[in-house]
Amino acid sequence: MKKKKQKVNAAILIIGNEILSGRTQDKNIAFLCNWLNLNCGISVQEVRIIPDVEKKIVSNIQHLSKKYNYVFTTGGIGPTHDDITAQSIAKAFKQKYRYHSEAFKILKNYYGIKKFNDGRKKMAKMPSGAKLIHNPSSAAPGFITKNVLSLPGVPSILNSMIENCKKYLVKGSIVHSKTINLYTVESNISKQLGNIQKKFKKNADIGSYPFFRLGKIGVSIVTRSTSKLKLDQVNKELINLIKIKKIKILKI
Amino acid sequence: MKKKKQKVNAAILIIGNEILSGRTQDKNIAFLCNWLNLNCGISVQEVRIIPDVEKKIVSNIQHLSKKYNYVFTTGGIGPTHDDITAQSIAKAFKQKYRYHSEAFKILKNYYGIKKFNDGRKKMAKMPSGAKLIHNPSSAAPGFITKNVLSLPGVPSILNSMIENCKKYLVKGSIVHSKTINLYTVESNISKQLGNIQKKFKKNADIGSYPFFRLGKIGVSIVTRSTSKLKLDQVNKELINLIKIKKIKILKI
Repeated sequence: MKKKKQKVNAAILIIGNEILSGRTQDKNIAFLCNWLNLNCGISVQEVRIIPDVEKKIVSNIQHLSKKYNYVFTTGGIGPTHDDITAQSIAKAFKQKYRYHSEAFKILKNYYGIKKFNDGRKKMAKMPSGAKLIHNPSSAAPGFITKNVLSLPGVPSILNSMIENCKKYLVKGSIVHSKTINLYTVESNISKQLGNIQKKFKKNADIGSYPFFRLGKIGVSIVTRSTSKLKLDQVNKELINLIKIKKIKILKI
Repeated sequence: MKKKKQKVNAAILIIGNEILSGRTQDKNIAFLCNWLNLNCGISVQEVRIIPDVEKKIVSNIQHLSKKYNYVFTTGGIGPTHDDITAQSIAKAFKQKYRYHSEAFKILKNYYGIKKFNDGRKKMAKMPSGAKLIHNPSSAAPGFITKNVLSLPGVPSILNSMIENCKKYLVKGSIVHSKTINLYTVESNISKQLGNIQKKFKKNADIGSYPFFRLGKIGVSIVTRSTSKLKLDQVNKELINLIKIKKIKILKI
């Protein structure tokens, strides 16, 4: 008997004026999407970037946490006045915003009692009932509230914490992918590509992405599917099309 | 008499499975946010990244176009089956999806009548009433439908077209910013920073962003305001705080 495939999805909520102002190039979206897809079989269905405004955080958390299995937030869990993620999530779920005793202990130990000032104490305040996501690089923990996992915005710290999210996640079916890079233009193969996609519309997604390399134009054809068999079948049809059209494959 | 300041805002809608799968690192968000803020005084209030799914594009276009002065979409305007932005926008606004005669002419000229196949013709199909955004690098035009500007996903092409959006945009007040980089940790100044923010809450936004450089930890304090005077006033208070705390400023 075949094991039933499980679809698990997530949304990402990036909280931070610095991304919307253009000051900072986000790096967390690609990292999280890759990690969730490849390591957990969790497909990211939507990403939103919003400013550090409580009302907006609250309404987005309420909306996204209902719509998707998991929501990952990044940013806004530091010690400064513009770090309002924890209090906003508490509000979104009508929970108290208070010291988490274990987080308080971790931070007190890390800074030492004399240097444990109000800003640092703030990082131990969370929605009541939150569970901690351990932070091996700078102590201040992330946390999970219902199905919302809150991580910091600094990419190196986020990356160091990501494996500690795993214990809270149900895994889905891993999506496999195959890429063929061609020296051609999209519009040379768009019709046939559309026909192949139609044939496999239930089992595979075929994407077409133009690129420029060494002065030449090319297209990456990316097929994604939870079934390796279907992936092979699509690939055969693509190879056939490439032969008929006499297109050069670019090996990388 | 003082000239009344005008607030103009925008949302960005990134359409593309390749971003959500983690395959592609988005570069358009930071570019558009910078360009809109610095060149047009248009503040980006929200970004969403969604898959190539018609229903999702339609509902997001309807929602965002009502909520913000402008919506910028990227991706999905090429010749392949997964390029469904134009038809989805037509649906969102209950408009016909048909050949734009000028776009058709541009593309026919560019490819030559013999190579003007169905895929290439598709790039001339737009919501009726759309106006063109000229594309100097690969001919296929972008377009504006009501307050929604649609651009391609390939960053180099998008960048080459961006100045051609200007004629469709009303400019807002430019937001000025000032950054001070400090060798300290956020939690050392978080309380005082919060007080300064409170004092200027109507006129300036103060953000605090940790960084690591050459093995040292630092914080960038970024103040943003449409008023240069307020920016200077905040800056004075920050310099004062830095002196009291004996913090080293990092000059770059």
